[in-house]
Amino acid sequence: MGESIGIVITGASGRMGQMLIKTVIEREGVTLAGAVERPGHDWVGKDLGVLMGGTESGVIVSDDPTAAFAGAGAVIDFTAPAATISFAKAAASTGTAHIIGTTGFTEEDLAALKEAGAGNVTVRAGNMSLGVNLLVQLTKKVAEALDEDYDIEVIEAHHRRKVDAPSGTALMLGEAAAEGRGVALKDVEDRARDGITGARERGAIGFSVIRGGDIIGEHDVMFAADGERITLRHVASDRSVFARGAVKAALWAQGKDAGAYDMMDVLGL
Amino acid sequence: MGESIGIVITGASGRMGQMLIKTVIEREGVTLAGAVERPGHDWVGKDLGVLMGGTESGVIVSDDPTAAFAGAGAVIDFTAPAATISFAKAAASTGTAHIIGTTGFTEEDLAALKEAGAGNVTVRAGNMSLGVNLLVQLTKKVAEALDEDYDIEVIEAHHRRKVDAPSGTALMLGEAAAEGRGVALKDVEDRARDGITGARERGAIGFSVIRGGDIIGEHDVMFAADGERITLRHVASDRSVFARGAVKAALWAQGKDAGAYDMMDVLGL
Amino acid sequence: MGESIGIVITGASGRMGQMLIKTVIEREGVTLAGAVERPGHDWVGKDLGVLMGGTESGVIVSDDPTAAFAGAGAVIDFTAPAATISFAKAAASTGTAHIIGTTGFTEEDLAALKEAGAGNVTVRAGNMSLGVNLLVQLTKKVAEALDEDYDIEVIEAHHRRKVDAPSGTALMLGEAAAEGRGVALKDVEDRARDGITGARERGAIGFSVIRGGDIIGEHDVMFAADGERITLRHVASDRSVFARGAVKAALWAQGKDAGAYDMMDVLGL
Amino acid sequence: MGESIGIVITGASGRMGQMLIKTVIEREGVTLAGAVERPGHDWVGKDLGVLMGGTESGVIVSDDPTAAFAGAGAVIDFTAPAATISFAKAAASTGTAHIIGTTGFTEEDLAALKEAGAGNVTVRAGNMSLGVNLLVQLTKKVAEALDEDYDIEVIEAHHRRKVDAPSGTALMLGEAAAEGRGVALKDVEDRARDGITGARERGAIGFSVIRGGDIIGEHDVMFAADGERITLRHVASDRSVFARGAVKAALWAQGKDAGAYDMMDVLGL
Repeated sequence: MGESIGIVITGASGRMGQMLIKTVIEREGVTLAGAVERPGHDWVGKDLGVLMGGTESGVIVSDDPTAAFAGAGAVIDFTAPAATISFAKAAASTGTAHIIGTTGFTEEDLAALKEAGAGNVTVRAGNMSLGVNLLVQLTKKVAEALDEDYDIEVIEAHHRRKVDAPSGTALMLGEAAAEGRGVALKDVEDRARDGITGARERGAIGFSVIRGGDIIGEHDVMFAADGERITLRHVASDRSVFARGAVKAALWAQGKDAGAYDMMDVLGL
Repeated sequence: MGESIGIVITGASGRMGQMLIKTVIEREGVTLAGAVERPGHDWVGKDLGVLMGGTESGVIVSDDPTAAFAGAGAVIDFTAPAATISFAKAAASTGTAHIIGTTGFTEEDLAALKEAGAGNVTVRAGNMSLGVNLLVQLTKKVAEALDEDYDIEVIEAHHRRKVDAPSGTALMLGEAAAEGRGVALKDVEDRARDGITGARERGAIGFSVIRGGDIIGEHDVMFAADGERITLRHVASDRSVFARGAVKAALWAQGKDAGAYDMMDVLGL
Repeated sequence: MGESIGIVITGASGRMGQMLIKTVIEREGVTLAGAVERPGHDWVGKDLGVLMGGTESGVIVSDDPTAAFAGAGAVIDFTAPAATISFAKAAASTGTAHIIGTTGFTEEDLAALKEAGAGNVTVRAGNMSLGVNLLVQLTKKVAEALDEDYDIEVIEAHHRRKVDAPSGTALMLGEAAAEGRGVALKDVEDRARDGITGARERGAIGFSVIRGGDIIGEHDVMFAADGERITLRHVASDRSVFARGAVKAALWAQGKDAGAYDMMDVLGL
Repeated sequence: MGESIGIVITGASGRMGQMLIKTVIEREGVTLAGAVERPGHDWVGKDLGVLMGGTESGVIVSDDPTAAFAGAGAVIDFTAPAATISFAKAAASTGTAHIIGTTGFTEEDLAALKEAGAGNVTVRAGNMSLGVNLLVQLTKKVAEALDEDYDIEVIEAHHRRKVDAPSGTALMLGEAAAEGRGVALKDVEDRARDGITGARERGAIGFSVIRGGDIIGEHDVMFAADGERITLRHVASDRSVFARGAVKAALWAQGKDAGAYDMMDVLGL
């Protein structure tokens, strides 16, 4: 890949910001080129290496996005909608690819974001885990390839503190399966089986929910026929997967035509 | 174990009877000593080997239980309540251990069965699968050993034709877990999670239900804490496990004191 | 589909041979045209219908492959490498399509097989099921999408009678993963880890082999990175999926140009 | 519990070393009394607090085990066999309890370790978690309950940096299974299956080894018969379970008679 790509991290002092910084430092092919915090934040003007408990790094935290982005290959941004729209403008002005893991956008935010980033390469995804994005695509593909002799079940497990069921990711997988079959999930979903349910409906997409311990997130999509089963499984063991996905997107974005991309594009699926 | 133990099979022409006969023939340490059908059945008086599509075996199907049982080590009996009570009397008269896989007894039947088999060695279980019986015992033991930092979840998967949920075996496992903890399952069970459920309750025993394809029966009991999980898992791949459990019980019964035993005794747990 | 295609089964007395015979008998569009066993085997010269516990079928088990294959549309062959090479010669001489489910070939065997089958239509696959062949495709695609941060492991489980390790299917999955990465499997495979192995090599494709009970065939392809894992899993629960796939291949092979095909060709994947 | 017990950590700069240090610092009843690295390591002579990204702790990393151990209540040691044997000598000379989580010992190593630690209190376990030690007990019990119709397989998965195979925990589980059956593991173990292995031997205990990503440790003990399987499974999701177990062992060891103990003794199982 030739030279190392310079990466700037926004929201540098936050939990996700620090995880991104560590990931960029550890990973070959990328270099930490800058870090941004909001004006007035007490990290501004200080050496990032020292701030994070190490030795001097030469990277000084900036409150000027345009200055920080200039010359960098990509900015990775897991902040908040208003900040991200502002960063989109700055990144477009410097021609720095904008990798967006921020969530919580309204429709209006998204329109503003689109306008702000016009002419730039942007990659945005609600979930930056490569694995989950890949699983969604595989689920759709397999649901297309197999007929209704293959019963589809989505099984998910999460820690005991999770308050919603099934998980958003499980529902996303169910949507992908339904899309692959050309049906609407709401017409075929089979949730919360209990009591005398009768036999399973042909074409149904079932959901099961497991809760316990500190499970970060496990998702299975099972296609079960007479005689054989295929299961597509994702297990998250560390929340750093989001940071890793963002760096992958930053590398992928280099040299791309201007446009609004997502993780599916990054994965080439 | 020295000599081979002679086994008699009742209900020889039925689906379960034939499976028992095959199991006894294939297994070392036991010999097929006889086969019984009801008076008037067209298998009576014929050679069992020929009846089952092979060559002569020398075993002639009988309609006289007492004659058939005499000298045998055990009779294995998966028939119906009235027949089983009658066989219990015959087996007690010949001192032949009576292995009972029959189900559907009323309370009155059970009293009659107890009286009929008095003085004999009997082994009776609603489920003769060694594995499931063992799993029930292990579940109780582990639930005793671990405190409520370990969240208990029972997960089961069955074929698409199953009409009830959770399976009877899953509920039996849940009962065993509750018993191990000294609580009543009905007070702690957490079934059919869906929507905004809130965080998992400490001490709850959760159930999840998977349906698809031709899955014969799979059961997991998971104990999930922060940092680690133990899972006890049973997978049935062939309904012949019931026959194998019965033969194991027949061997175990040899030389035991008279009494009414179950598969837990056979397993020594 | 016009006339029924005559099929010959080799290794007729074996577990897979008998499954193939049953499948051919039950399936429309094909007819059992012959059955082959090795010279000296006690099935040779006898009627297959009687041997399998039924009435006379008119098909006499032969120990002469060339005579048995003559006039048939296809021979389905799940035996052993040396026998299969010999059958390839006979099938080529009679112009009978050769459907090969045999596994455990060495490189030398494969060269000999190719020479023996030259000029004939052959379909060879480590596994004939739709699910496994789909898994092979998915494996290649995922290996393309993910970089070497994702360690690839192929894990397989089979019954206790299996004599080769890893299974042909596991090797096929490993080949697909290597192809997806643009490397040769032989350069990266990591088999039979034992003792002080040192850390895992980056880019390696590992294999693990589980043997026990009556497991028909289970294959996992795991892509494990820091923080997440994707696993593609196939479970066969009934050996008939392989037999049905083989018969599908036999039908597909009719009228094809001479050549060495695989199940991807048959399934149009 | 009276006074706080001083603990020394060996291999202080390693992943497990740092986890142990954090656990000792956070836990009541114990104090970090010292830290050891090998001569020439760049942590030697520096303040541990600063090295780990915090403020000065007053604990200077030493390359002299005897000096570091003197006066401490216990040394916790997850390093490598040769280092551990050397630490055993030092700990015996200072009368400091030696808690050993190191794995990968040969028979010769174990003899040397025993000699080196003679007269001292040592606690050694292939795995220090409550869950794994419970699994060892269950494994022995199930192996006692089931006969050789149930093939035993131990399957383990660990991160890509692990250098020994199978894991110490897998071998411990294999020993427990062998003990339950009344055989010696070395007589029945079946490791590193590859190539034309022939059918599985009756009574064998098989091992499979999976390596990839950041898997902390997963162990399955499978009992697979015709028709059913029981699997006992342990998944570690946080390395702190081992560190917490080691600290528990260090506390337990105080005031015990000299001897070689294991976690069963510590946990009272």
